[in-house]
Parts: sequence; structure tokens; C-alpha cells
Amino acid sequence: MTSVAVALFPRFTALDAIGPYEVLQRVPSIDVTFVGATRTPVRSENGFLGIEVDATFDEMPDPDVLVFPGGIGTRDLLTDGPTLDWVRGAHATSRFTTSVCTGSLVLGAAGLLDGLTATSHWAALDLLASFGAQPTDQRVVEHLDRRILTAAGVSSGIDMALRLVELLVDRTAAEAAQLWIEYDPQPPFDAGSPRRASDEVKARAAEYAAARA
Amino acid sequence: MTSVAVALFPRFTALDAIGPYEVLQRVPSIDVTFVGATRTPVRSENGFLGIEVDATFDEMPDPDVLVFPGGIGTRDLLTDGPTLDWVRGAHATSRFTTSVCTGSLVLGAAGLLDGLTATSHWAALDLLASFGAQPTDQRVVEHLDRRILTAAGVSSGIDMALRLVELLVDRTAAEAAQLWIEYDPQPPFDAGSPRRASDEVKARAAEYAAARA
Repeated sequence: MTSVAVALFPRFTALDAIGPYEVLQRVPSIDVTFVGATRTPVRSENGFLGIEVDATFDEMPDPDVLVFPGGIGTRDLLTDGPTLDWVRGAHATSRFTTSVCTGSLVLGAAGLLDGLTATSHWAALDLLASFGAQPTDQRVVEHLDRRILTAAGVSSGIDMALRLVELLVDRTAAEAAQLWIEYDPQPPFDAGSPRRASDEVKARAAEYAAARA
Repeated sequence: MTSVAVALFPRFTALDAIGPYEVLQRVPSIDVTFVGATRTPVRSENGFLGIEVDATFDEMPDPDVLVFPGGIGTRDLLTDGPTLDWVRGAHATSRFTTSVCTGSLVLGAAGLLDGLTATSHWAALDLLASFGAQPTDQRVVEHLDRRILTAAGVSSGIDMALRLVELLVDRTAAEAAQLWIEYDPQPPFDAGSPRRASDEVKARAAEYAAARA
């Protein structure tokens, strides 16, 4: 069995964690565990969603795969010794250490991205640079020699996890997972990248983020 | 404020619920609540994920929007009087009643889809027909006169929710949500539809489902 640890923390972004979970859990040779600092349920940014933590970092020191999701709560982790120690320790023996969205800031703070190209949510690419990484706007950035994959904002974790299944099992496994989750995306609009969203949409996005902050 | 109730139940499919949640929660005028029969955390199909139930069906009888996700656990709901009563009651006053994946079976069992075109997970379209609906393989099927939207399997709830935000607020709001979740999908493979997945992939998918069952 391949063990996957998905890290949780207060004010996480749910889809960052659940997108990869949903892909990975389709493969019977993969076990997914949601882990955190303590076995206390954690809430997403707005408090609308609570997820249970099923193991502590201490209880799962050496997963085969580490998935670190993002969210505004990552900011509190960037100087959090126990979390960064767990990331470094897990990475020492993991097959793959991965992040979605601003989860890459945590990998960076743990020193895993020094000198590497990496990605994050589009709004956090500048901040990522301050942790030694070279930000790119690719959707998924992989360094197989370093066993590190980083994905862009939120929904990109689905794309990253499909590639991860290919690496862990094979391409047929990844396509079978894609078929089960019927991942045949048909976005009704084309505003998912800051390169294509209009100025009006960017202004509204800024307004919404300020209102939710 | 617009109130959204996302229904939870044992053995739900997480991305069915979290995809729409993640889109909707980006809009500050929308409140999302996870509801269930009792205020007891529920587990996804494989038990890997526990989500907290923050309100009972009785406590939230008239949300503006109802989102019913799918999962193998829907089969137990198809004859569950209290759940079906809640769906019918909520639909009587909702602005929109929606489903993702096999959540449409529940809407069908509640009598909401009689004679309507509707969709579901590709593997459940035949079953959907037995509840009075006319199954189609469109990704999102909308009947605005009946205030009903159904989405196809799992990941399709993201596409559906973007359209829902357009209906609830406006197109700029939907595009702003798309931008924040960086929904610029780049699937590494093209196996997300049974029309395009190879026979080998379909065989592997069947094998995986049997192993997980």
C-alpha cells in the first residue's frame, strides 16, 4: 500500500486538499489519511466547513506521499517549528512531497524549494520567491530528481494528483481515476487565469477577497 | 445573504460536495452550511475523510439553494422518508435545487425530476431513468422554469456551481470565483468521459471500483 498524508490546519482551503484526495482515493493501492498538529477538527477559511483530523503529524512521520494544501492559514505555519520539522522529516523518506496553492509556501519555509522552480496560487507567486524558490506560472511543476511537485491555485491539485497517480502506479491507473471522477472539465467561462480574466473580473475578485478577509 | 445547504450523509463523495462549496464560498453574499440528518460527522465512501455536520435538515428547512452531492451512500436515501421530505420541502421555496453526480437519484426519488431531462454520474444514468427522469450525458442540465440543475459525475459540480453563481449574482461574480480557484483546467490525460476513455482504462476503472466496494 502507498500511504498518503494530506496535511490540515486552521483556515485551509478545502478544494486544495479534497481535489487530490478524490483522485488518489480511487486507486485501491492508495490509503489517504488527513493529518494535523492535533486530533482536533479544523475549519476552512470562512469557518463554513469542518474536517476531522485522523492522525497527528507525530503519528505519521513517514508517509509515502505528502500533500500540503494551501489557504490563508498557511501564513501562520511559515514560522511554526513543529509543522516545518514534520515536513522536513517526512520529505527525507517520501516518494513524493507535493503542494497545492499556497501549500508551496510551507514547503519553501521548510527549505525544500531552495533554487527550484515552483508554483503557487497566482496571487502568492511573489511571496513564494521570498522562500528561495523561482516562481513560475505553470499549472504543475515537477522535479522528479528532488521528488517534489508543486501545483498552482486551488483546483490545480486535481491535475497534479492525476500526474501523481501516473508516477505512483501507471498511466492507466491515472486515467481510470480521471474516468471515475468524470474529469472532463467544461468551464462555462474562461476566467481561471489572471492572464485571461478581464480587468472588471479582477476588480471584483479583489473586492470579494477584501470582503471575506 | 443567500443561504446554501450542502447535504451530507454517510458514504458521500467528497468532491461532489466540496467542488460547489469552494466556488460558492468565494462570493461574500453567499453563506454555505453543511447539513445532515443529525449533527454527527459523516465519512466518505472509504472512510478516509470525516466532515462535520453543522445543522440538521430540520434546522434548515428552507435554504435559498440546495446542493445534493452523490456517493454510494445515496442508495440508502432513495427510500428514506425524512431525507426525501426535506428535499421536497426545501425545493418548495428554494431559488435553485441542484445535484452533483448520484445526488440526482435523490432528487428523482423525491419526485422532482418527473419527465425532466437530467444527468448523473455516467455509471448511474440507467438508474436515473428508473426515477422518472430522461437521462442525458450533458455535463450540466438546467431547467430554470423548474429551478433545477443537475450535474454529471463528481468534478462536474465545479462547472455547475460557476453557472449557479451567474444565476444568483451575475457573470462577473462567477468569473471572479473562477479566478480565485484558478480553475483553468489542464488535465494531463483525456479519459474523463466514457466516450473517450480506452477499453483498457474502462477495465481498470471497473477493477478499481470492485476492489473498493
